[in-house]
Amino acid sequence: MSWRTRLFEIIFEAETKAGKRFDLALLVLILVSLTVVMLESMPSVAAQYGKELLIIEWIITGLFTIEYVLRLLVVKRPLRYARSFYGIIDLLAILPTYFSILFPGSQFLLSIRALRLMRVFRILKLTHFVSEGKGILMAMKASVRRISIFLSFVLLLSTILGTIIYVVENAANPDFSSIPQSIYWAIVTITTVGYGDISPITAIGKMVASLVMLLGYAIIAVPTGIVTVELSKQFGKKTNLTESCPGCGHDGHDPDARFCKFCGHAL
Amino acid sequence: MSWRTRLFEIIFEAETKAGKRFDLALLVLILVSLTVVMLESMPSVAAQYGKELLIIEWIITGLFTIEYVLRLLVVKRPLRYARSFYGIIDLLAILPTYFSILFPGSQFLLSIRALRLMRVFRILKLTHFVSEGKGILMAMKASVRRISIFLSFVLLLSTILGTIIYVVENAANPDFSSIPQSIYWAIVTITTVGYGDISPITAIGKMVASLVMLLGYAIIAVPTGIVTVELSKQFGKKTNLTESCPGCGHDGHDPDARFCKFCGHAL
Amino acid sequence: MSWRTRLFEIIFEAETKAGKRFDLALLVLILVSLTVVMLESMPSVAAQYGKELLIIEWIITGLFTIEYVLRLLVVKRPLRYARSFYGIIDLLAILPTYFSILFPGSQFLLSIRALRLMRVFRILKLTHFVSEGKGILMAMKASVRRISIFLSFVLLLSTILGTIIYVVENAANPDFSSIPQSIYWAIVTITTVGYGDISPITAIGKMVASLVMLLGYAIIAVPTGIVTVELSKQFGKKTNLTESCPGCGHDGHDPDARFCKFCGHAL
Amino acid sequence: MSWRTRLFEIIFEAETKAGKRFDLALLVLILVSLTVVMLESMPSVAAQYGKELLIIEWIITGLFTIEYVLRLLVVKRPLRYARSFYGIIDLLAILPTYFSILFPGSQFLLSIRALRLMRVFRILKLTHFVSEGKGILMAMKASVRRISIFLSFVLLLSTILGTIIYVVENAANPDFSSIPQSIYWAIVTITTVGYGDISPITAIGKMVASLVMLLGYAIIAVPTGIVTVELSKQFGKKTNLTESCPGCGHDGHDPDARFCKFCGHAL
Repeated sequence: MSWRTRLFEIIFEAETKAGKRFDLALLVLILVSLTVVMLESMPSVAAQYGKELLIIEWIITGLFTIEYVLRLLVVKRPLRYARSFYGIIDLLAILPTYFSILFPGSQFLLSIRALRLMRVFRILKLTHFVSEGKGILMAMKASVRRISIFLSFVLLLSTILGTIIYVVENAANPDFSSIPQSIYWAIVTITTVGYGDISPITAIGKMVASLVMLLGYAIIAVPTGIVTVELSKQFGKKTNLTESCPGCGHDGHDPDARFCKFCGHAL
Repeated sequence: MSWRTRLFEIIFEAETKAGKRFDLALLVLILVSLTVVMLESMPSVAAQYGKELLIIEWIITGLFTIEYVLRLLVVKRPLRYARSFYGIIDLLAILPTYFSILFPGSQFLLSIRALRLMRVFRILKLTHFVSEGKGILMAMKASVRRISIFLSFVLLLSTILGTIIYVVENAANPDFSSIPQSIYWAIVTITTVGYGDISPITAIGKMVASLVMLLGYAIIAVPTGIVTVELSKQFGKKTNLTESCPGCGHDGHDPDARFCKFCGHAL
Repeated sequence: MSWRTRLFEIIFEAETKAGKRFDLALLVLILVSLTVVMLESMPSVAAQYGKELLIIEWIITGLFTIEYVLRLLVVKRPLRYARSFYGIIDLLAILPTYFSILFPGSQFLLSIRALRLMRVFRILKLTHFVSEGKGILMAMKASVRRISIFLSFVLLLSTILGTIIYVVENAANPDFSSIPQSIYWAIVTITTVGYGDISPITAIGKMVASLVMLLGYAIIAVPTGIVTVELSKQFGKKTNLTESCPGCGHDGHDPDARFCKFCGHAL
Repeated sequence: MSWRTRLFEIIFEAETKAGKRFDLALLVLILVSLTVVMLESMPSVAAQYGKELLIIEWIITGLFTIEYVLRLLVVKRPLRYARSFYGIIDLLAILPTYFSILFPGSQFLLSIRALRLMRVFRILKLTHFVSEGKGILMAMKASVRRISIFLSFVLLLSTILGTIIYVVENAANPDFSSIPQSIYWAIVTITTVGYGDISPITAIGKMVASLVMLLGYAIIAVPTGIVTVELSKQFGKKTNLTESCPGCGHDGHDPDARFCKFCGHAL
């Protein structure tokens, strides 16, 4: 077995003892790294331990850089890995530290390392979790188009409602100082977040606001309905799987099926 | 081909090169116009560039007016266009500028131009998006009656809950100064928006508020349920009903089925 | 036709011209009465027109009292009417004015008159609306037990989470001054209302709060699920109604039914 | 009948008169105890009646301790009881008082006694409620894995969105003083709670916030969808499957069916 195959097994897989140890070390490093980023952002901590935190950050970034280069070396098709979802995250996880030399402050973007945790998730062989997660992701993917239509509709609505409240409230209320600000208010209200940093004070303004709230309360139903329909297809199917076809091996038949829907063989 | 037919193809359709260019120019104009409205509403910008923005607004309104007149000229049944959804929006998109001569401030209603974007949406041939959007719209139309019954029920409830909190809080809390104000609070709370500009301070008031919140938390389920049922009919239909079996006449086969699951006949 | 039958037709029914006029007058009176209650609660209005509003209130209450007595007289089983849903509301709609002699302030409870609007709703022959409303009400009735179990579970949870945040925040934050106050905060947070009048300031407090929010975000799913299941039964059935049984006249059969489920007759 | 069997009947069951009295006394004691904990946490009450409340608390704890020991004595397999859900709660309900000698303040954790109410719930023979509650619990259990995947996804998202808003707002807004604080804001916003104690003030910050809100508004659909699918399995089953037809063996009849809808045979 070549060193490349061996390294591949350690870095990419988790079947061998060395592979498991590597993954555990990776998990710890990511968590340490995230903690460092959080601590650096806290003024009181940064003032006292800034130097030490910077050193740890550079060490971890160095290790992650080595890991990234190794991954490129041992994988059979490096370009394909570099372009894959995990490959891009692995790269994004080291870039901010180098950028921070030119643009101070960009090291905070290191929190993108949180996404690396998803790899460990897979590594820990939580296969059940992964398959459930896939079901949810597929339902979300299937609804992405519908949800984005819905969201652009909400944005359009917020633009118009924001302008109406601006015309109504502007004279009496400094909170609604411009239309973009009022659109921001409309989004805060229609999504039922309701910070309260901007709120109407005139009687008509409150009536318009009530309308916006009731509207938001009613249309929150739409994305829920969309995802529920998708999810019920996703998980409805999966739990009803009874048996594979003896003719062609396909599974995923309905519980009331008496013949395979792919080859017509009796079940 | 008469000039009317040619103009019709350019203005209303997007099959020809000229038609596509026209639609693109329209899209850019609408976005510029919306930006101008937003900028005009910002005091600091309006103070410095007010004159320039006003000129741009009048130029765009002029162009939109010419476009509207052309649409009326080239279409076969002008009255029907003028009364159609898009026709009304096209008219509403130019009126506020003219009104602003008489009533200053009404130019902000120009943000209704945002609705014109829907036409471009159609023009861009995002047919998939349009058909999905139609599905959502049909589900919403089918639920409109149920949702409005539900909303009038929520309003009735808010009136009564608002009065109760008024009786309870009024003496101790200047926030609940009148019943309409308290009804506004009830709507803010029952829809789970919760600005916090008005909130109870007495012990009994907080208990009533808790009740209102739990109620709102529970009944938000109703519109969701209504729309989900409608949506599952809308999108359920499209994917489930493909064809009947030529062997036994059963329908309800999956879209990927090649053989009848009841008798095994090829579909 | 006796005077009782004639009066019954006018007061309780809306088939005759006189009946329709009566209902319209009733609708106007209720709305006027509600407006009076709202206006009375506004200090500035009450100070200036208090006397006039009081007179209108007493006149309307007088008219409603006469109407209530007439209803008792003309109906065949007065006791049954008095105990019915509408009968109780009709009584509750006049009591607060009389009570206000003994307990000033109780006249604000007159807003219960809003519920009388439901009768007019029925009278206006919006039968479609009524049948839809019935469907929603039946689904809510069917879920009432499940929803109340869920709400008592939420209350239990809020009690425990409120105590935890109290122990965590009490020393540093005067907002969390007692356990009942903290339970109030937990309810405000778990229902995603989020006034912001009480909010954690310590690091651990914010972590507990985040947990409570995520919990609330996740369990809001439960009432929605419950009602959706009920509604899909309610409206699912209704739209599938195909034909009445020729044997016994019952409808409401499933689309795949070949025999009446009530009498066994072939459909 | 031995004293152990008799005591078992009184303490664990509610069939005999003595058993019912015991349960009623227990219910009253729990409610008194919860009230005492609440009152103790209120500074004004604690200052005046602190001593009396402490005495009541110790008496109730003494009674609960005796009860716990008795339960251990009369049950056949004490270890199994001690490890059961109710056994653990019964123990946790007495520990805080004893701990409060060493760690003052821990007596507030006595509110865990609220969970003991669940036992009384069972005792009151609200069997219908219990079976409904079980259905809800089973649906929640079945969705726990999916919901927790979803929540960890929301946490990951909040970490990244929190960092982005930190980078954007930190310079201008003291509210976003550190990344953990900004993550807290992201959770408050994405769950649509929206306290308003931390809110963006820069234009870009408000745009990011709008995005987070719309995201939260859209993905609240996921847990709802998950639970709805589970619940519809749970409650769908119970109401639909009543019995098989003795004539043709088909099941899936409605609860009100008296004849088989497939062959017309009496059920």
